[in-house]
Amino acid sequence: MSALPTPSSPDRSFDLPLWSHKRLAHVEQALSHWVGHGAPAGLGDAMRYAVLDGGKRLRPLLVLAAHEAVCGGKARATFDAAALRAACAVELIHAYSLVHDDMPCMDDDVLRRGKPTVHVRFGQAQALLAGDALQALAFELLTPDDGAIPAATQAALCRLLARAAGSGGMAGGQAIDLISVGAALTEDRLRQMHRLKTGALLQGSVLMGAICGHADPIADPTVYAALSDYGAAMGLAFQVVDDILDVVADSATLGKTAGKDAAAAKPTYVSLLGLDRAQAQAQELLEQAHAALARSGLPDARALAALADMLVRRSC
Amino acid sequence: MSALPTPSSPDRSFDLPLWSHKRLAHVEQALSHWVGHGAPAGLGDAMRYAVLDGGKRLRPLLVLAAHEAVCGGKARATFDAAALRAACAVELIHAYSLVHDDMPCMDDDVLRRGKPTVHVRFGQAQALLAGDALQALAFELLTPDDGAIPAATQAALCRLLARAAGSGGMAGGQAIDLISVGAALTEDRLRQMHRLKTGALLQGSVLMGAICGHADPIADPTVYAALSDYGAAMGLAFQVVDDILDVVADSATLGKTAGKDAAAAKPTYVSLLGLDRAQAQAQELLEQAHAALARSGLPDARALAALADMLVRRSC
Repeated sequence: MSALPTPSSPDRSFDLPLWSHKRLAHVEQALSHWVGHGAPAGLGDAMRYAVLDGGKRLRPLLVLAAHEAVCGGKARATFDAAALRAACAVELIHAYSLVHDDMPCMDDDVLRRGKPTVHVRFGQAQALLAGDALQALAFELLTPDDGAIPAATQAALCRLLARAAGSGGMAGGQAIDLISVGAALTEDRLRQMHRLKTGALLQGSVLMGAICGHADPIADPTVYAALSDYGAAMGLAFQVVDDILDVVADSATLGKTAGKDAAAAKPTYVSLLGLDRAQAQAQELLEQAHAALARSGLPDARALAALADMLVRRSC
Repeated sequence: MSALPTPSSPDRSFDLPLWSHKRLAHVEQALSHWVGHGAPAGLGDAMRYAVLDGGKRLRPLLVLAAHEAVCGGKARATFDAAALRAACAVELIHAYSLVHDDMPCMDDDVLRRGKPTVHVRFGQAQALLAGDALQALAFELLTPDDGAIPAATQAALCRLLARAAGSGGMAGGQAIDLISVGAALTEDRLRQMHRLKTGALLQGSVLMGAICGHADPIADPTVYAALSDYGAAMGLAFQVVDDILDVVADSATLGKTAGKDAAAAKPTYVSLLGLDRAQAQAQELLEQAHAALARSGLPDARALAALADMLVRRSC
């Protein structure tokens, strides 16, 4: 194995597409294995439709990248059971949130990843239940009874995921989003909304990966705090970029309806700050993420660094 | 303390209302303490409205009764932290399922416990999010990081709750319910639907109570299996009685719209078997529940026995 780069000299040659491709093969296989089987036919179909064959899988990649960063080379020989389950669990939470968010009583979106949304394809009732069942399945995946994952890890993963998904996280952010339509938000309030709505689960993904590598707040406070900062910066950056793309990209590229935020009079970073300042914010958050990785002292956080670059520079 | 009755001679003098009253005071206080605080205002209000000031709290009582049964007198001196959290968690899952079930795309019910349903009061979007957040909160309650509950207990509780709530449990049963409207179900299929839709969470409540008392499938297979059988019988009995009450009770007594099942052409035990045979089924399941308690060998399962009697003989 070649010498690892130091945190202060990130390896610009890191091949993120190759790294991701290998890992996503495991994640896709695992999701296909775990989602929807044993469920009543209509429900299982809706759950699988919501989860499989689509999505960038950013959250699973953050779990796996954080896990590998804290484990160093040791994590690579075999595919860690806890990290794979955590990667799938965060994706299930993300997928359920999209199903519910697309429903007529929320964003009323008919297109997602270039396909009809779940309620369009399966009906609203089945979409509602599929989302509910996906959330439960996320916690079921984190708590296998085969002895492969220590109970302390299972409990910590459930704790992180529940907090990231609930009223102090994703659902809370969506609620702020809901009552903010047409409202004049301050930048602080907008940031709070974004931090909860999207940031909490992205940050949670990073921390769940760390936990799978047994880096916890007690044993490794420096690493854990740095990864938490990285996750917070990335979470906010992701939403800022999302707001930018909603303005500058077209529906075909996004795989969803572009320009929805403006049409719905939703406050966004772009509507509040203008495009230039929003882009500067995204760049600043990216730098914060890299600085946090440097602070972590982890010898090889290349995948996390590359994911941060990709998240901010993506075009869809 | 007076001599405990043997399982074969249940103590008919057991004061269930008094027993319940004392425990529910703790549960109500805990729910009020835990639900909706720290959430954005609208969401927190909807969550609290969905959970507080209403409901029979059958599931929390089953958790606490099972916990006390496996602990004997030892559980009574202090209020066990794990059991209280588990009791609240199962109620949150139940409450969220009602919020979503009442929505226009599901049962479209406007009355619940004599009050406007959550979506009538707060709007559909907020109701959807409140349900989602309540499910996450259930798992958050089970995984405190204060060291009060062993990690193995936390993991086992999350496992049981996730299975009871998901596509192999409550959500799965609701999906079968959904596709069964107007269909001619066999008794087996109806039983499967009921076992999942209502039975899984009631049985899960009993088993979570057992786990809180450290009676698990490995350490106490006899006790665990017997309580599992008790929970299964009670779960099914509860739904059979629900079907009966939908026919024989009026809306004012039920606190919800009576006669909905027949109006919606939903298959029920009564529509399938007729009232007399449905009542006989409920009685038979009650006897199965008592037989399971006798098999458990637990010296004092009076609360569980009394809850079984009450669940079958209730009028609302």
